[in-house]
Amino acid sequence: MKTINLIGWGNVAYHLFSAINNLNNYKIQNIGVRSLEKIDDFFALNLLVQIDDLKPADITLIAVLDRAIEEVAEKIPYKNKLVVHTSGTTAIDVLNNKNRKGVFYPLQTFSKNKEVNFKEVPLCLEAENDSDLNELKLLANLLSNNVYEISSDQRKSLHVAAVFVSNFTNHLYTIGNKICTDNNISFNILKPLINETADKIRYLSPKEAQTGPAIRFDSKTIEKHEDFLKNPIFKEIYKLITQSIQQNV
Amino acid sequence: MKTINLIGWGNVAYHLFSAINNLNNYKIQNIGVRSLEKIDDFFALNLLVQIDDLKPADITLIAVLDRAIEEVAEKIPYKNKLVVHTSGTTAIDVLNNKNRKGVFYPLQTFSKNKEVNFKEVPLCLEAENDSDLNELKLLANLLSNNVYEISSDQRKSLHVAAVFVSNFTNHLYTIGNKICTDNNISFNILKPLINETADKIRYLSPKEAQTGPAIRFDSKTIEKHEDFLKNPIFKEIYKLITQSIQQNV
Repeated sequence: MKTINLIGWGNVAYHLFSAINNLNNYKIQNIGVRSLEKIDDFFALNLLVQIDDLKPADITLIAVLDRAIEEVAEKIPYKNKLVVHTSGTTAIDVLNNKNRKGVFYPLQTFSKNKEVNFKEVPLCLEAENDSDLNELKLLANLLSNNVYEISSDQRKSLHVAAVFVSNFTNHLYTIGNKICTDNNISFNILKPLINETADKIRYLSPKEAQTGPAIRFDSKTIEKHEDFLKNPIFKEIYKLITQSIQQNV
Repeated sequence: MKTINLIGWGNVAYHLFSAINNLNNYKIQNIGVRSLEKIDDFFALNLLVQIDDLKPADITLIAVLDRAIEEVAEKIPYKNKLVVHTSGTTAIDVLNNKNRKGVFYPLQTFSKNKEVNFKEVPLCLEAENDSDLNELKLLANLLSNNVYEISSDQRKSLHVAAVFVSNFTNHLYTIGNKICTDNNISFNILKPLINETADKIRYLSPKEAQTGPAIRFDSKTIEKHEDFLKNPIFKEIYKLITQSIQQNV
C-alpha cells in the first residue's frame, strides 16, 4: 500500500481525492491545508491536517493555486520524498530542493458540482529521474487511460492552448447565453449546437470544421451582426475573431 | 404523400435531404440547383433540375447562401405555394410575394463529412399564418425533437449567439491546435478538455462553469501567457477575452 498526501482542497484537489480514493493500492494519508476552518466537507474532514503537521508519504500531490505552490512546498516538514505539483503553468523547479520534484498535471476543467470521468482526463507527467517518473506513471495509469510524458516547456504551451479551447470557449458560451436572455430566448436552443461543435473535431480538424459568415467572407451578415451587438467588448470580440478566421484561411 | 422541393446543394441542403429522405409521408420531388454541372453526388443525381424547371410542391425549402435567397425565390416558376428559407440571419420578407412565406431554420453546424443526429437539431419555425405554421410544424416534428416557434427578430439574435458559441468556439479550437502543432504536442491531448467544457454547461450555467487564470485574476499567469503568444492576433484575442471575462464577473 502506497501512501499519498494531498495538499489543497480546491476543485483539482477534490477531484484527485475522489479518483485516488477509489484505488486499492493507494491510500490518502492526509489532506494538508493552510487553514483548517475553511473546510466543511464531511467526507474529507478526518484526514485534514495543517501542512506543518503532515507525516512523510510516498507521493505528495500539491493542488493549490499556482502562486502558492512555492510557499507550500517549502512548508512541507519532511525531505527526500517525491513531491509533485499539479499546475499546467508552473515550472518543475519552483518546488523545493529538499524533496524530489515532479509534475502531475490533469489537463481538464474541474468544478466541484460536476462529476468527471477521470479515466478520460489526460495526465501530463514530468519528473527529474526515471524512477520517479515510473512511480508517477504507475499511479497515473491506474487513474486514467490518457497518460503523457510532457516537458515543462511543452506543458507551458499546452496550458495556453487549454485556456483558448476551454476557458475562452466557455466565455463565448456566456456571451451566447447573455444574447439569448436579453432577447427572451432559452439558452437550451443553443446546447445541441455547442455539443455538435465540440463533437465535430473528433472527426475533422477544426480548420476543416470551420463554418459561418466569417469563413464565407459574408460581409453583409457580418455587418448586420456587428450592428446588432451593442455591448462594446462583445462587438470587439466579434470583429477580432472574424478577422482571425479570415486571416487563417 | 406530401411533396417537397429542395433548392440548393450545400451542407444544409445535403443534411435536410438525408433527414427528409427517411420520412414515410414526405417525398423529395426535386432538388433545384442553379447550375447542374457542379453536382457530383450520385444519390441525388436523378432528382436534380434547374430551378426554372421545378414543378409545384407542397413545401419548397430554400437552402442556399443567404445572399442568393432573394434571387432564387424570384426564379421559382410557380405561385401560391409555401416557400421557406433555412437561414438564421435572413428576414422572412426577403422571400418573393408570389408564394406564401416561411422560415425553417435548423440551428446546427453542418459539414458534409460528418453525420448529424437530426432528431437533436433545434428547428426554428416562422410563417405568415397559422395554417402554414402548422404545416411546417408537422414536418419539423417528424424530423426533430426540438422544434421552436421563433420570430424574425429572435432568430436574428439567435444567429449572432450561434456564431459566438459555434463558429468562434471552433476558431478557438483552431488556435489551440496551432499552438500544439507548433510545440510538437498532439492536439488529441486537448480533446477530452474540449468535450468536458461543452458537456459542463448541461449542468451549470456557463458563468458558474468559468475557470482559468482570467476569472481568478491570476495576473502572473496571464502575463506569462501573453509573453508566450507571438502571433499578434492570437495575443490580441487572449487579452480581449481575458478582459471580457473579468468585466463580466
